[in-house]
Order: sequence, then structure tokens, then C-alpha cells
Amino acid sequence: MRGGRRTRKGGSARRRDRVANAPIVHHPTLQRKIPIFEVCNREGVERIHDFAMRVVEQVGCDFADEESLDYWRKTGAEIDAQRVRIGRDELMELLALAPSSYLQHARNPERSIKVGDGHAAVSPSYGAPFVLDLQGERRYATMEDLNNFQKLNHMASTVHVAGGPIVEPVDVPVSHRHLHMAYSGLKYSDKPIMGNVTARSRAEDTMAMMRIVFGEAFASNNCVTSSLVNANSPLIWDETMLDALKVYASNNQAVLCSPFSMAAASTPASSVGTMGVVTAEAVMAIAFGQLVRPGSPMVFGVPAMTVALNTGAPVHGTPDSATVQFLASAMARHYRLPHRSILNVSAQKTPDMQAGYDSMWGMFPSFLSDANWITMAGGMLEGALTVSYSKTVLDFEQLDAFYHFCQGPNFDDIEEIFETVKEIGPGGHFLGCEHTRKSNLFLFPSQNNVTFEQWEAEGRKDSVAVGNELARTRLGKYHMPPMDAALDESLLDFIARREAAIPPASL
Amino acid sequence: MRGGRRTRKGGSARRRDRVANAPIVHHPTLQRKIPIFEVCNREGVERIHDFAMRVVEQVGCDFADEESLDYWRKTGAEIDAQRVRIGRDELMELLALAPSSYLQHARNPERSIKVGDGHAAVSPSYGAPFVLDLQGERRYATMEDLNNFQKLNHMASTVHVAGGPIVEPVDVPVSHRHLHMAYSGLKYSDKPIMGNVTARSRAEDTMAMMRIVFGEAFASNNCVTSSLVNANSPLIWDETMLDALKVYASNNQAVLCSPFSMAAASTPASSVGTMGVVTAEAVMAIAFGQLVRPGSPMVFGVPAMTVALNTGAPVHGTPDSATVQFLASAMARHYRLPHRSILNVSAQKTPDMQAGYDSMWGMFPSFLSDANWITMAGGMLEGALTVSYSKTVLDFEQLDAFYHFCQGPNFDDIEEIFETVKEIGPGGHFLGCEHTRKSNLFLFPSQNNVTFEQWEAEGRKDSVAVGNELARTRLGKYHMPPMDAALDESLLDFIARREAAIPPASL
Repeated sequence: MRGGRRTRKGGSARRRDRVANAPIVHHPTLQRKIPIFEVCNREGVERIHDFAMRVVEQVGCDFADEESLDYWRKTGAEIDAQRVRIGRDELMELLALAPSSYLQHARNPERSIKVGDGHAAVSPSYGAPFVLDLQGERRYATMEDLNNFQKLNHMASTVHVAGGPIVEPVDVPVSHRHLHMAYSGLKYSDKPIMGNVTARSRAEDTMAMMRIVFGEAFASNNCVTSSLVNANSPLIWDETMLDALKVYASNNQAVLCSPFSMAAASTPASSVGTMGVVTAEAVMAIAFGQLVRPGSPMVFGVPAMTVALNTGAPVHGTPDSATVQFLASAMARHYRLPHRSILNVSAQKTPDMQAGYDSMWGMFPSFLSDANWITMAGGMLEGALTVSYSKTVLDFEQLDAFYHFCQGPNFDDIEEIFETVKEIGPGGHFLGCEHTRKSNLFLFPSQNNVTFEQWEAEGRKDSVAVGNELARTRLGKYHMPPMDAALDESLLDFIARREAAIPPASL
Repeated sequence: MRGGRRTRKGGSARRRDRVANAPIVHHPTLQRKIPIFEVCNREGVERIHDFAMRVVEQVGCDFADEESLDYWRKTGAEIDAQRVRIGRDELMELLALAPSSYLQHARNPERSIKVGDGHAAVSPSYGAPFVLDLQGERRYATMEDLNNFQKLNHMASTVHVAGGPIVEPVDVPVSHRHLHMAYSGLKYSDKPIMGNVTARSRAEDTMAMMRIVFGEAFASNNCVTSSLVNANSPLIWDETMLDALKVYASNNQAVLCSPFSMAAASTPASSVGTMGVVTAEAVMAIAFGQLVRPGSPMVFGVPAMTVALNTGAPVHGTPDSATVQFLASAMARHYRLPHRSILNVSAQKTPDMQAGYDSMWGMFPSFLSDANWITMAGGMLEGALTVSYSKTVLDFEQLDAFYHFCQGPNFDDIEEIFETVKEIGPGGHFLGCEHTRKSNLFLFPSQNNVTFEQWEAEGRKDSVAVGNELARTRLGKYHMPPMDAALDESLLDFIARREAAIPPASL
């Protein structure tokens, strides 16, 4: 029953080589051909909507600066200090101004992405101060690491956004970092990028660089960045995040409005209760964005976490977080908005089996719901404090697998298969037959299927070692996408001017 | 944004202790409260059905012994040597005799299980000759290992079947092994057991032991074992498997009819084509079982695998296998039969991250479809050749998580939560509030959420080490369920008599 194994010396090493040397493929944004999985019915969605509407009407949401409150003063909202309460009808009217999908342009038009209306883009990991490096050592991330991850993301066939703030290059002063992070994304990849949100001036610098790349008029009217703003749950949008939101929305750039929910701490200890609160937060931010610029693209996002009541630590990858992700997807559909999910974060310190399990509790909900902007593409450990090189490249294989899975079962060749079965008959085999030779069954390049003895002879490599080897090989094969020299010079010139203007010691 | 972490020395160790010392909980068979995920629509199901019916009508299926062919001779089937072809109408009439669910009795009535009609039971891993022991060494499995795994399965809250042939105790002669395997399951657990299928006489010995436990009349009319028979795909049922099927079916015992599909080798290189062939195989065996004894319980099973065309090795945990599992579940519903799935097998040699990923490609399809008999509960590596102690206990935590997930979002306390949100308001927190104190959010006991520094101080344990520690602790806490001394003596007496009658050297 377990037959069919063959030992072929070095087979797995050869296969991995082939993978590392394979030409780069860039898959377009995902259009799922399988149904959407729901964890509750229509009535459940209506109840969460009603909960959220009662929150915005009766409890309210804080907008923590006067400029932002001034926007609300143009509406019928009731404003009490920083607290904004608004009737559901007016709120829904504002929300309806946000588009159900948007196109984000990359500097290479072939890498532009559609987000929403059945299209999903996968974006990189985000903001980790540490890396687990190619030797498996944990240390502060550097600019070189960020560049490396941009390269790996660029080469990943199902990661659609390469220019993201994947790790924090701590060897660059905080006040100059955003410039180099944006440049890293633009230089080492030609996929779309994400913008900086840590200060109004940094969001403006990001926009200035986008104008250099795309031209003044184009970058002010077309989406060329998507940026991520988090609420301080429960029910507070702070000045920094609102500043970034205003800069981007006023330029018609996409904003992922993502309440940072930690069930049992910042939101209720309940999937339904968490969803009720974060829905209120998200729709308030999205409606606010429509006050800033009607029609500016906004994404309904919920990075779901739970807090461990015994340690107070946020935990990722639990079944309740998965439920929240499915509910969030349903709510986003209810409001006809694109939905942002979290793929892949573990609190483990090393990419061990538990890290794999934790990640899958994000990946399956991201792909089985119809999430449209899928963040944290690979490698995140330690609750998003660390990105591992090894885990990154293995996670990319999982993304490829989900992309394949989402194509659904193929019925097109069913008659050819029936003829093959008739021909082969009972007791035959399908190895080598014409249909099998055209097989597109998915195999994980880094999955080990050799014998135990062969695995032992090859050095007993676990997936951490396999991943590190693959990451090293892939980095060696990287080719930089072309960038016009004049553009490069303009970007570097802008960075130099801004660096001269911003004291490095400032925060 | 990443706040909330607290260091509390030894917190994770204390938590694991609490888990290891927690009282044993036995969850009833799972009744899912979430929708079923489908990968294709009604038309797809009809097309696979039609494919399978054309296979049984035009290609046929071999039944490899005369006694079995004699059963088919009582029908309108066309028989050509060992090949059986039958019209779809007659086949469907036979199939309709099989019940859509059945009750399997355990020696402790509280552990009896319902299989089918919305009820799902989880059963242990199966038949591995090797273990990865508590020191992480791979070696041949022994009787002590089998007993240990029976104990761990017995203590697992969401494993409903503990008496399975989890590992092959190679220190017992093959010809006597089935006796000791059945005894191990009966002695160390009071959950339901699986039967031996490796020879007609061994199936009969299993039945004899069941009669000792349950009484002659009861065991011949009520289901007290479920046994697993595999087709030799494509389209052959061999004499050994048919012998076992006949012994069990004639005693009204459940048989899981599971074509052992390896796409690209024993079945077509296509999810749809594989499903067409294995559907033909499964329905032929189930119809055959109804010829043996109308109304005997049968399960439609498909343990999906793919063959790696470069090495010839079977691989587990791919997106195509997941698609096959979802399709199999849809086909089983089409025939109103219980469905058997595979949870959790990896070809990795050690429980690393890839092993976690591989396993999840079985776990999500098992729980998001409505599989009713979910096999391979924990620990299987090396393509089912090895069971790891460490992986076993960590997999059990995943099963608990899926059990929790399948309860769906809870709307019952939504009004209490709204009042809590009103009370706490923007900027507050939910830690310690009354609703949070009643929280039943799921946390993985072995997930690590302490700081990196604390993890380092605690010895940098990865999930392999954590699992081995947990397995050791749990085995130390095991209490044997009571067994009547006279029953125990009768079983041992039967084994002694059979051992005297069967030469140990025989195969």
C-alpha cells in the first residue's frame, strides 16, 4: 500500500536546484474560481451590521485631532469633544462613495494590480524590526535585509506587491528611513508599493517620490500606493494615522483601514463582538476618507488577534481569529468594499511546526473567503516582530499552492481522461500516459518525498535548513528589473535633499 | 502597535503544566454548526457521477476471487473473468441499501459514536512500522509504543476512536500481532476500535474478541468495529480486502471502502479524473457489501495522494489532494453515505514547518467539508511510515481547535457584549470585564507567546521539544479506564488459545 518509492541519489537536491533556477513567473491578481466559504448566514451579517451601527450611533468613535473633526462637522454627526456619533443612514451614504474595487499602478504596467470585485492581491510582510537571518540568527534588520526581502518578494510568483515596509532597517535613522524604504521597494522590484504612515511628512514624502515615478498629474489622480492605517481599538483613530489617511486619500491613493483588534483586550472576547466593534471602526474611517475625497479607494481590513489572558500577549493563528477573518470578509461584501486579511503570522520564535500551523489558520481563511488585499505574505514570526528568510521562501510555496487551489477543479479534459481510463483499465497505471505528461498537479518544491535513508544521507535537513538554502540560492539568481537611469537619479536626488532637510536625530 | 507583551518567568512552562494536568475531556462526535465548503457546483457533482457510472458500465472493476464474483452473479452484472460491469440503475439500487449513518458501540457506552448524518468521528493514525520516539529517534515501533499511542489517543478530547492499529508492533510476530493490537485498543482505552483486515482469519479473530466484549448476539447485529479496506487502484478489489469486507459486512460491522488513490499513477493526473475513478471503485465495494448483507454500514472513503513524477514517490498535503477531499465529500453526500477523509499525513521525516503545512492541507478539507470518519488523527510522518510522539500531541491541539472552529460564531451573548462596549467605550479595554472572564476563546496550549528573551531563557525550545515534553507528561498522567477482570481474563485466554493454534512464523 505504500509502494512506489524510489531512491535516486540527490533527487531532492536536484529538484530544489531546478526550482531555484526556474524562470521568474508573475501571476496576475488572483481571481478565485471556487465558492466563498461563509461561517454564518445572512442573518448573522445583518446582526453584526446592526451591532456596528448601534456603536456608531450610541457609543461613537474618537477622531483625535481638530482638523479631522472639522471634516465631521460638515456632516450631521454629533460631536462631543473628540467623540463622533453619526446616524447609520448618513454613514452608509458616505460609505457608498467608496469604490468596490480599484486599480493600483506599478512602475511596470504589467505588474499593476486590481483589488476588489473578485480580484485579490497578496502583499508582503510588514514592519518587523528583527530578522532570522540566513544562518538562523535573530538580529536587528538592516537596509540590506530590506533589499533582500524586496528581491525575494519580487521573484515570488504569487506576491503581487513587492514594495512594502517588510522589515525596519534599523541601520538608517528613523527620520530618514521612510525615504530609503520607499526607494528599496521601487528599485529592487517593479511591483506596486505600499506607503509610509508614521507621520504626515513621511506620507507626503512618499507621495513626492510617487510623483517623480509616475508624474505629477497621474500620481494625484490614480492609485499608485496602498497604505495601511490601524485604529487604536476600541474606537479611537489617532492623529498620526488620520494624518496619513488624509494625505493619501486627498491624492486618491488607497488606504487599508484596519482596526488592530486583539480580542479580550482591545475588543470583546468574542468573534461576533470583535467583529461588531471593528466594523464600526473600519466604516467610520472609510466614511471619513470619503469626506476627505469622495471616491478615494478604501479597503475594509481586520487583522484579527486574540490576547492570551494568562500572559497578556497577543496570539495569532487561532480558530477564533480565523472566524473573525471569515466574518470580516462577509461584512466587506455587505458594504461592497474590498477586504484586507492577514495571511500568515505566528508568535513562535523559530519556523517550527507550530509556526506552520499558526500560519495556516490565516492562510485558509484568506483564500477561502474572498479577501482582496492579503497581507503578510511570508516569514513573520514572534507575533510580527521578526521576519525569517527561511520561512519567507517556504511560505511563498504555500501561496503558489493556494493560487493553484483557488483555480478549482478542472472539468475541461474530463472526456480525454475517460478515454484514458478506458484504455488503461483495471490494474494499469497512468504514469507516462499522454494525459499525465500534460499534468499540472501541484507539487511543493521543498516538500521532502525521498526515503528516510536518502534524507539521512543528504544531511537530515529539516525545513528550516531547506528554506535557508533556497533563500540563499534565490538571492543569488536575482536580476534587478530595469529602471530608467534618470528616474533613479531623480529619486536619489530627492532623498538626498530631504535627508539634508531632516535632522537624522529627529523622531 | 505591538504592545501588550509581558514577561512572566516560567509562564509558558506553567501553562503547559496546567494543560498536562487538566482533567480528561471526551467531546462527543462533532456536529458542525458552520456551512459546508464546496469546490464545485451541483453540475460538477453530476459530471463526476456520470463519469463513475460510465466506468462501472463500460470499463468495469475487478473482483479478484470466485467467492466474491458469486455475489455479483446474483445480480444483472456482466462478468468477464474477474471483471464486473453493472448498469448504473441496479448499482444505485444496491447503494441505496447502505445506511446514511450508523452507531458504533464502544465498550464504555458513553464513548459510542455516531458516524454520518451530520456527525463526525476522528480516528487515530494507522499502521506505521516506525516511531519517532520521545528522544526524537526513529526506530521500529513496539507493542509498548502501540500501548502508549492508545493511551494518548484515549486522553485526546477530540479523538473519538482510540483503538486503532496506530503503529505496527514489530516485536510481536506478524501472525499473532492482530490479537495484541485489538487487545491494546480494548485495554488501554474504552473508546471504539478498528478491526484487522490483513487476512480473513484475522478479521474473524477480531470479531471473536468483539463477541467476548459485547456478547455473541449483540456483536453480530450491532456495529462494534469499523474497518478499513483499500482498493488497488485503478479498479481492482483484491481477495484479502474482499475477505475482510465479507467478514465484517456479514456481521453488520462498518467497512470504510477507501480507494487508495495516487493521482498520476494509480488514478489520472487530475482531481476530477481521480474522483471519477475512485468513485467507481468505492461505490462498487459498497454495493458489494450490500450484496453480502443488505443494510450493513459502509463509508465512502478517499485518502487522496499525488505521485511526484520525478521520484515516483507518493506525496501528501497538496492542494490537489485537498480538492479531491472536498469533491469526495460532495460525492458521498450525493450518494447519502458517510464520508471518510484523511486529516494529517506528511512525507517529511521530522515534524518541521513543512510537516505542519502538509498536515493542514488535510485538516482544513476534513473539517470544512462534512467528512464523517476522519482518519489519521495525529503524528504521521514519512508518508505514513512513521508516527511521531511529539507531532501526535501537537496535532491533537489542532483537532481541538477545529472542533472549536466548527461550532461557528456565537451570537447568543451579542446583547451582553453591546452593553459591555457601551460601558467601556472608546479607549477602554476589555481585560477583566465580566464578559471577558467568561471567555471561551481558543488558545493553543503549546503555542509560544512569551518574549524572545524569555523563550531563550527557557532553553529555546522548538515545537518538537515542546511536543515531546507534553507527550511524556501526558503519558505520566494516564489512568487506565476500568475493565471487568473476568472480561480481561477471557480476552487474554482467547489470545493464548489462538497463539497456540497459529504458528508464530506463519505470515
